[in-house]
Amino acid sequence: MRAVDIIQKKRDGGELSSEEIAYLIQGYSRGDIPDYQISAWAMAVYFQGMNARETGDLTLEMAKSGDQVDLSPIAGIKVDKHSTGGVGDKTTVVLAPLVAAAGVPVAKMSGRGLGHTGGTIDKLESISGFSVEMDRERFFAQVGEIGAAVIGQSGNITPADKKLYALRDVTATVESIPLIASSVMSKKIAAGADAIVLDVKTGSGAFMKTLDDSIALAQAMVDIGTHLGRNTVAVISDMDQPLGFGIGNALEIKEGIETLKGQGPKDLEEVSLILGSHMLVLGGKARDEAEARAILKSHIADGTALEKFKQMVDAQSGDVTQIESPDKLPAAKRLIEVKAAAAGYVDGIQAEEIGIAAMLLGAGRETKESVIDLAVGIYLTKKVGDAVAAGETLAVLHVNDAAEDKVAEAESKVIEAYRISSSPVVPPPLVYALVTKDGVTRY
Amino acid sequence: MRAVDIIQKKRDGGELSSEEIAYLIQGYSRGDIPDYQISAWAMAVYFQGMNARETGDLTLEMAKSGDQVDLSPIAGIKVDKHSTGGVGDKTTVVLAPLVAAAGVPVAKMSGRGLGHTGGTIDKLESISGFSVEMDRERFFAQVGEIGAAVIGQSGNITPADKKLYALRDVTATVESIPLIASSVMSKKIAAGADAIVLDVKTGSGAFMKTLDDSIALAQAMVDIGTHLGRNTVAVISDMDQPLGFGIGNALEIKEGIETLKGQGPKDLEEVSLILGSHMLVLGGKARDEAEARAILKSHIADGTALEKFKQMVDAQSGDVTQIESPDKLPAAKRLIEVKAAAAGYVDGIQAEEIGIAAMLLGAGRETKESVIDLAVGIYLTKKVGDAVAAGETLAVLHVNDAAEDKVAEAESKVIEAYRISSSPVVPPPLVYALVTKDGVTRY
Repeated sequence: MRAVDIIQKKRDGGELSSEEIAYLIQGYSRGDIPDYQISAWAMAVYFQGMNARETGDLTLEMAKSGDQVDLSPIAGIKVDKHSTGGVGDKTTVVLAPLVAAAGVPVAKMSGRGLGHTGGTIDKLESISGFSVEMDRERFFAQVGEIGAAVIGQSGNITPADKKLYALRDVTATVESIPLIASSVMSKKIAAGADAIVLDVKTGSGAFMKTLDDSIALAQAMVDIGTHLGRNTVAVISDMDQPLGFGIGNALEIKEGIETLKGQGPKDLEEVSLILGSHMLVLGGKARDEAEARAILKSHIADGTALEKFKQMVDAQSGDVTQIESPDKLPAAKRLIEVKAAAAGYVDGIQAEEIGIAAMLLGAGRETKESVIDLAVGIYLTKKVGDAVAAGETLAVLHVNDAAEDKVAEAESKVIEAYRISSSPVVPPPLVYALVTKDGVTRY
Repeated sequence: MRAVDIIQKKRDGGELSSEEIAYLIQGYSRGDIPDYQISAWAMAVYFQGMNARETGDLTLEMAKSGDQVDLSPIAGIKVDKHSTGGVGDKTTVVLAPLVAAAGVPVAKMSGRGLGHTGGTIDKLESISGFSVEMDRERFFAQVGEIGAAVIGQSGNITPADKKLYALRDVTATVESIPLIASSVMSKKIAAGADAIVLDVKTGSGAFMKTLDDSIALAQAMVDIGTHLGRNTVAVISDMDQPLGFGIGNALEIKEGIETLKGQGPKDLEEVSLILGSHMLVLGGKARDEAEARAILKSHIADGTALEKFKQMVDAQSGDVTQIESPDKLPAAKRLIEVKAAAAGYVDGIQAEEIGIAAMLLGAGRETKESVIDLAVGIYLTKKVGDAVAAGETLAVLHVNDAAEDKVAEAESKVIEAYRISSSPVVPPPLVYALVTKDGVTRY
């Protein structure tokens, strides 16, 4: 077998065999196949695509390239949730305790990553003392005892994916649906998920800007899960504006706590209930979405969801009094109100611009070396559909030590992000479609 | 400027600027841009193509990457000829003395390369003592004195093309017309040609199997020449059977001598006259092809073409008595006749199979290290259209030291190469089309 023949086969639109995909990925991992052949192959995949079987094989090879977590010592169906990433997305903070309260074990490994705000584990570190590092025995024990643990990714998970992603990043081969799908799914498989609920964001603030692309990515991922024997469903949710009001690490923890109390933003609550319902169904704790939703709402109403969060924070050495009194969470020194120039209705909020503004204030990492300020961020007081008077506050910047020019830039980005219409606006739907192994349901 | 953005632009079908192409090729030459970005770019070019301006810019950047020969000390318009390669193609051996006799200076640098037989300089080395190495001063002086010199490529010609070609070879990006065209033309430009006549072969024995592909390649090369101010024309000639009768180094020199005497195979003579006519017109020695052809035929008829060849051989230390008596050229020890199994008409001769058979006998290089046996090869006694009786000789193997299994394999390849029809066959045309800056003329 020769790499050049495999590249040519894909270039000419052929279907690669399992052996050919294994040869490429294993050879690349070992360093026997050089970057320059893999980048040419990735570009051929960009143009010619891969079918479900090929994409599944690629996923499995990448999952097998490093450590594979065996969650079988934990009883029950382990359902993982993954979001393709959006601004203000703190659903994991809500869902981990919420579905654990309903009896679905959550053994979640999460990354830090670059971006507008930190990742889930950065957000959780807003809570004083919260530890995201623990060995496997303690991790399993915590999930066994209280039903939920969220820790940082440790060990050598999917090194082939890391190597391939770094190469794709510098060879203009990121934007390929089978390559994106296999990258995401390989990490979920390696992390030991029995079943997977995907939150594929769509819209201006999402990686996938159009609904069709988002559905195509969702289908590719569901196909992989199905091919590899993991029950997988994907929800296509809106990212044409940020989710909830808060963007920034401590701000998002506060909002998560409010949501667990039933007092959070309606969009965040609804998306959490939808994703959580699918997690309960896949986890065997509800027959259908309606039953699952009722169960989840009861755990919010009777306080058991919040109680579960406090148990998890306590087990991970976090300060539970900050959950009881969120005002004790890190807070910014200075609040700057961004006001509307004219009256009207909010027609759109460019999520990506809001995200960059939050990063400028220090809420996210621009480079791997950046240090996050957990207190800062942006709080939106107006969302799409809301009426606005001239001079009324659209959003509040939570500022600590950012340089004045960065603050000014953040402020103008927020102003630019808001599109104001003179006529009333109907807010966009929160969820556009559901993708399962049986097909696509558009709402 | 970043390589990844340039790759993405091409991937998305954009036109690269001159600066972007210069950035890529210069960066690649210096080693600042890694192989893995260039291979991804080449694959993007494979799918998205390049227009004439981009291809011209790429050609020029590759020509500029190493030594550029300045032929201006030689008076007159220096017309180079290039063939895309075929089996039995010895036109350069005929054309160098023939057009030099008509006053067009031939300062030809030629490669050895891999293939069915040696390159032109290997063929010329069949003549005892013939030297293909000389310094630039002597090269220029010889062209000045007798009008023709054919030497090996020396110095550092188009290193960027060499590096890019080696990369394309292992990344399945060879078969891209703009990349093939710029590779060929960069070498011609760097070698100092003022004008270029291209012989683009088409058919089973050619790199381009179909007439449309051959014309597309020819157009791309003519466009490059035009873009770079070099008068360029391309002849599309047949390679559905070998050219002439002889395949093998000394066999081809003999056939070249016969052709210079007007006693060569009709197809070789005709293709030589067509290519030579265009060389005379571009070299300013004839107003049109008809006048050029008459001039060339007169030089064959009056012996001045053969005399020019003898002058060139003498100037390059070759044994002129071998030109006067070609029987003194290296000859094989053993002749094996390949006979027809049944009567009929020759309907086709797979040129590539004949070429491989010649290589098996030792006429060409399988690897860079292979040593060529200049005496061996194959002599075709029947060509397409010829009537054949059962048991009549189709071809003769000229054998020296090849192992018996190789000889047997060569023999069966020759038999397989001949397709015999029961009904009369009209031979294919020798030339299918002419491509100039004004367009394509199909014959």
